[in-house]
Amino acid sequence: MLEPNQNPLRLLHIDSSARPGQSGRDPRGSHTRRLSARFVERWAARRPSDIVTYRDVGQFPPTPVDAAWVEAAFTRPEKRDAIQRARLGESDHLVAELVAADVVVVGAPMYNFGMPAPLKAWLDNIVRVGVTFGFDRARDGDPYWPMLPTGKTLVTLSARGDYGYDPGGRQAHNNFVESGLAAPLAYIGLHDRHAIAIEYDEFGDQRLAASIAAAEQAVDALVEQLVRQHTAPVLA
Amino acid sequence: MLEPNQNPLRLLHIDSSARPGQSGRDPRGSHTRRLSARFVERWAARRPSDIVTYRDVGQFPPTPVDAAWVEAAFTRPEKRDAIQRARLGESDHLVAELVAADVVVVGAPMYNFGMPAPLKAWLDNIVRVGVTFGFDRARDGDPYWPMLPTGKTLVTLSARGDYGYDPGGRQAHNNFVESGLAAPLAYIGLHDRHAIAIEYDEFGDQRLAASIAAAEQAVDALVEQLVRQHTAPVLA
Repeated sequence: MLEPNQNPLRLLHIDSSARPGQSGRDPRGSHTRRLSARFVERWAARRPSDIVTYRDVGQFPPTPVDAAWVEAAFTRPEKRDAIQRARLGESDHLVAELVAADVVVVGAPMYNFGMPAPLKAWLDNIVRVGVTFGFDRARDGDPYWPMLPTGKTLVTLSARGDYGYDPGGRQAHNNFVESGLAAPLAYIGLHDRHAIAIEYDEFGDQRLAASIAAAEQAVDALVEQLVRQHTAPVLA
Repeated sequence: MLEPNQNPLRLLHIDSSARPGQSGRDPRGSHTRRLSARFVERWAARRPSDIVTYRDVGQFPPTPVDAAWVEAAFTRPEKRDAIQRARLGESDHLVAELVAADVVVVGAPMYNFGMPAPLKAWLDNIVRVGVTFGFDRARDGDPYWPMLPTGKTLVTLSARGDYGYDPGGRQAHNNFVESGLAAPLAYIGLHDRHAIAIEYDEFGDQRLAASIAAAEQAVDALVEQLVRQHTAPVLA
């Protein structure tokens, strides 16, 4: 018998822009905050009972990993002292948000061809040995394996001052945003991914306006697609 | 007439590893700190009058760019108020170190396929409109142009837990360290670059030992090459 899945889904909404507002609403607002807010609003309109967790690493950058973090993370949990447990507290929290999420929506503007430093700090905090990936030197074949629960979807919403950074474009080889995010997330087990971006920001002309309109349409279509995908009938 | 250039050269030595020590000397020390220290020691042995500036972004991460930084950077210098000037003080300092340098030696370990977050924070602080690059929407052709003084050399010294990340290798497509650093630096005018890396760190076996030995030999050879390049006879 086929039954629709009626469990609430969890969205993890991450923003990483240095700009606090949204373009089109706030002066000098962020395009990526605009797109991620739109995604979440559309989703909530379709599935109002779903749970959204918001994490603004742009305004509240995670602490970068340091020597104390590395030492604590590579100490077995039962051997960690209070200082080591405390050092990993922020990472534990960020990992728990990711583990709980069905859909991870990341506003990730391109800064100097890559992601903002605070988003990389978030990534470095959620890739955790023994928690989101496993490693065993003695293992046959690949000594690494993913530990993130399966079934998650990554949505990257980016914005670029220049243009041509999509696959096949004139600047695709210089785009380290989507790939830089997707590679470590695939490594820990998140493979289903989608990406939408606004381009031409620094030109501020009709091309920017057209790019924003196209990105907003793509966001709306992606929400419909993912709502269907994540609520597909399952065998009861 | 040909004369050797006897002016002192300036090295900017940047480390970004979360690990404070050096491998081979300190327990759980950093491979990239080991290589960058070796580079600078060898250089100083060859040219003891040269000037070395040390910047440890691993231990002292630069503040990521935020809304106040962006607003100040995009305000003309003569229009900036005291708060805006103060917000850019750290960036001004990092830019001045880069502008003064003839050779930039960067210890850049691979964390989750990319550079450490504090090194990205450094990059985002030194790419400055009107200072290290120019932008003019009304310009014919490319609206961007580099403003960094020419003649500099970038040396990236990396380390990777896994292996196969060099060009042509099995994991080259997942390496965002050297390219993520080189792309923005080329954009501001630094094109001459060299890269050396240690691999196999997580295996801790004979392959790691061989990789360290090869990287150290490559560092020594590169120092010789760059000393010759930067002190080549010039037309007087």
